Amino acid sequence: MGEPESFDAWSHARLARVEAALQRVLPAPDIAPQRLHEAMRYAVLGGGKRVRPLLAFAAGEVAGAEPDRVAMAGAAVELIHAYSLLHDDLPCMDDDVLRRGRPTCHVEFDEATALLAGDALQSLAFQVAAEYRLAEDGIAQLEMIRLLASAAGSRGMAGGQAIDLAAIGRQLSVPELEFMHIHKTGALIRAAAVLGARCGNGLDAGALAQVDAYAKFVGLAFQVVDDVLDADSSTATLGKTVGKDAKDGKPTYVSAIGLVRARELARGLREEAIAAIAGFGERALRLRQLADFIVLRKF
Amino acid sequence: MGEPESFDAWSHARLARVEAALQRVLPAPDIAPQRLHEAMRYAVLGGGKRVRPLLAFAAGEVAGAEPDRVAMAGAAVELIHAYSLLHDDLPCMDDDVLRRGRPTCHVEFDEATALLAGDALQSLAFQVAAEYRLAEDGIAQLEMIRLLASAAGSRGMAGGQAIDLAAIGRQLSVPELEFMHIHKTGALIRAAAVLGARCGNGLDAGALAQVDAYAKFVGLAFQVVDDVLDADSSTATLGKTVGKDAKDGKPTYVSAIGLVRARELARGLREEAIAAIAGFGERALRLRQLADFIVLRKF
Repeated sequence: MGEPESFDAWSHARLARVEAALQRVLPAPDIAPQRLHEAMRYAVLGGGKRVRPLLAFAAGEVAGAEPDRVAMAGAAVELIHAYSLLHDDLPCMDDDVLRRGRPTCHVEFDEATALLAGDALQSLAFQVAAEYRLAEDGIAQLEMIRLLASAAGSRGMAGGQAIDLAAIGRQLSVPELEFMHIHKTGALIRAAAVLGARCGNGLDAGALAQVDAYAKFVGLAFQVVDDVLDADSSTATLGKTVGKDAKDGKPTYVSAIGLVRARELARGLREEAIAAIAGFGERALRLRQLADFIVLRKF
Repeated sequence: MGEPESFDAWSHARLARVEAALQRVLPAPDIAPQRLHEAMRYAVLGGGKRVRPLLAFAAGEVAGAEPDRVAMAGAAVELIHAYSLLHDDLPCMDDDVLRRGRPTCHVEFDEATALLAGDALQSLAFQVAAEYRLAEDGIAQLEMIRLLASAAGSRGMAGGQAIDLAAIGRQLSVPELEFMHIHKTGALIRAAAVLGARCGNGLDAGALAQVDAYAKFVGLAFQVVDDVLDADSSTATLGKTVGKDAKDGKPTYVSAIGLVRARELARGLREEAIAAIAGFGERALRLRQLADFIVLRKF
């Protein structure tokens, strides 16, 4: 064994696996109903950082998980994420017309098709999670599906979106912001990491809890960084669109505690994430690198 | 063993079990996010014929399934059905303001809450299907989840809704109508019956195929009867709202082949359903009674 490959090379190879898995499980655009399948593919295959599948791969390395299993688990999580973005963009939600530099799905297709495509992507996520072998035995895989469903549902991601909507126009405290983000994005990020780890079978409950704690801190850090970047780009570049969150009246960490303290908070969360997985030693290399990738982007 | 209990008594007892299962798995309305949980309960617990859970119970009896398992499998199917009605009523879909004599969810709450409640109900369905023991072994239960997800997704129910939307304003032939209904409602009805049968373990692949065939015919018959009743009420009672499907420009069996032939078609489908399960003898009593209940209501 020589030097481990660079983070770039590692993540590049994993991203290729995830894209292949998504291509494999999404119905071909020439299968009826074609427009619906086109919309599903448009929403999922239009880029995206694939942070959740990368977290699954990084956590899977701690547990010695087979990459083929992690790719399918990561694809299932990414399908849930893609459906949530699709519904989040709808006129009755955030009413966004652009995502990743392209028209949002309901603009490119129509509202009804976007709604149904999101619905069908959620179904597909669970179909994938049940159809492919992800764990050594069936009972363990059922627990993975339960975890994914719980993270997606009313006490996870969907609940977080409801909390988010209720918060528009109000300023939230840091604990309130944390409560919102732990649901809205945190639950699925944690599920991604834990599912990745559960694709292997080397981890006991204590070790899984460490992976979960790491993902909790990384997920929160991700949000704080998002808020900082959103505020930064609007203040730095006069004449550009003002930060979208502020414009929409959404509470952010920057509006709650200011830019300087938000940056400090993100760095602190990164340190907590790294500390949570200290016991894994070298097996946690990719988890550490991902934390840096997520938190240190651009500042 | 004396006379079997009446169909009314049998279905009454099963409906009570399903309601109890739904009450148990739906988050309490005082759990945060409260408004979302209220909306989920509003959509699910506001009545409904619970045809799908009853089909699961009737098919379960053929396979000697434990009623507690069937109740949870039926609840999972009903959660999928409830979410689909909720999304179907949204302004970008059918834009309905009334369901079961009450305001639809987006009227009673708001569009965003209704959208998220539907999303969360779908997640909850899969959470229930993974969390409770439905089959003897994990692998068999994974296959049940795969089937449910497939029936709900783009090549099942969600796909059928897309086909339905695309058909508005067009007259469809009987084969085209069949294609639409086999997806829109048939897939989930078949899944309900097969899942009920799979809660037991007495059925081989051939027997499961017979249950599936029965449910396919019953599901189609159900649609034809719906179209007949919709047309009947509008023509019989002058001054009342014209049949909603016709008003919305939706193709129906009545508009395709007329009232008389639509009634004949429903009766023929019922006979095919009954014939499909002839081999089960007395164990299929409830399946036969359900076919009559579904097809013979009101005519």
